[in-house]
Amino acid sequence: MELSFAQLHRQQAPLLLPNAWDVASALAFADAGFAAVGTTSFGVAASSGTPDSGRTSKSGTTALAKALEALPAYVSVDIEDGYSDDPEEVAEYVASLSVAGVNIEDSTAERLIDPMLHAAKIVAIKERCPEVFVNARPDNYWIHQDATVDAVLTRAAIYTYAGADGIFTPGVTDADEIRILAESTPVPLNVLAHPVLTLGELGELGVRRVSTGSLPYRAAIDAAVKVADTLRSGQAAISATPYDTMQNRLIAFRQRKSR
Amino acid sequence: MELSFAQLHRQQAPLLLPNAWDVASALAFADAGFAAVGTTSFGVAASSGTPDSGRTSKSGTTALAKALEALPAYVSVDIEDGYSDDPEEVAEYVASLSVAGVNIEDSTAERLIDPMLHAAKIVAIKERCPEVFVNARPDNYWIHQDATVDAVLTRAAIYTYAGADGIFTPGVTDADEIRILAESTPVPLNVLAHPVLTLGELGELGVRRVSTGSLPYRAAIDAAVKVADTLRSGQAAISATPYDTMQNRLIAFRQRKSR
Repeated sequence: MELSFAQLHRQQAPLLLPNAWDVASALAFADAGFAAVGTTSFGVAASSGTPDSGRTSKSGTTALAKALEALPAYVSVDIEDGYSDDPEEVAEYVASLSVAGVNIEDSTAERLIDPMLHAAKIVAIKERCPEVFVNARPDNYWIHQDATVDAVLTRAAIYTYAGADGIFTPGVTDADEIRILAESTPVPLNVLAHPVLTLGELGELGVRRVSTGSLPYRAAIDAAVKVADTLRSGQAAISATPYDTMQNRLIAFRQRKSR
Repeated sequence: MELSFAQLHRQQAPLLLPNAWDVASALAFADAGFAAVGTTSFGVAASSGTPDSGRTSKSGTTALAKALEALPAYVSVDIEDGYSDDPEEVAEYVASLSVAGVNIEDSTAERLIDPMLHAAKIVAIKERCPEVFVNARPDNYWIHQDATVDAVLTRAAIYTYAGADGIFTPGVTDADEIRILAESTPVPLNVLAHPVLTLGELGELGVRRVSTGSLPYRAAIDAAVKVADTLRSGQAAISATPYDTMQNRLIAFRQRKSR
């Protein structure tokens, strides 16, 4: 039996969620066997030439979520702070997306917002879309404001009480802090891929989901530059997945969509 | 004195044109010192989940060209077949783009079109936008139809007579054929990055411009999957350009745009 998106957070190993910035990257992750794919607001914003965290990713994220409805994998969408201070507007937006989950962060323009306002957004989303996995994100570590375990746990408790299905704490890297957060959070804890700790080691600390965040997008941009740099330096071309393979994957995806 | 985009085609070594699929990739190429950046219709189409060559890249290409107006590099845009059979519509579209150059291909839906219709598009573009470098693309090799040097040279002659500033023959890989095409074409010859021949070797054959095509995009997608695969296999995260570096590049780009 196929596991639900929520059940994927309750397996032996943490759920590894790769974050796509466009349809072809999401398709490539699904083809590589990932049962769930996230999006990256950084990648979506950067693709259109704007910095992250300024609510600029909304139109790109909306279009991406729509385009990924036919993806053979669960889709969890990074909606920054919900692109609004109004909980009902946020809930209406989430309802419009047809996705398995959302990430919603409690900072706007690099400042933490009142946790009660963030909780109100979570309540509104869960009332409107009880089936959507709401991953609530205390941004203390991420924006280096009030970045203590206690402050994060206070926010995590409020968000869990409000109905959040998961807690996401990007920016935490200390193993002891990760363990305390995981032990003290009744819902699955999500962290970013760690520069040193492996998926298994994060799992032993109690982490239930590991997101790649914008790392695949940044590695993608680096790889693109490397292709050009290699040619410029007089070397032969780097090889990659052939044009026809990727084109055929897109043709099959479009056919699945139109069915 | 800064060289014009046309002059970049008349240097000792061929112009290496890396093809971007979005703003951040174009910014990364410009930051890496490339004086001119192309776009890839495959990458633009794939980003939005559609196959290449079906005129589906129009809205994405239009948005990308608009967003790249502030790029500190020349921009040449891949507009497939001009997205129309009507030369005046094609010319009007090119005029709307504010770019240094366009690539326009003489196939639609994987079939070569009448070379006289393609020539009429070139005439219309050059009448409307004489300053735009029009790189005309005989697609014989690319779609494996009439893929002989003679057939390509006939089309290239018609397009050059119509006013094309360059000829692009993607799909040709035989060194002797490349040499004959270069010798017989009065305007700069453009080929795709070669799997074996280096930039210098292509230059010795007479090639004046080498495009990466969709290779950087395909390598980018591969790199993104590799990041996720590496984590899934229990290894620590691959490193990439840091989030802050890329975010700051986007902030600077936005500031340049708003000036």
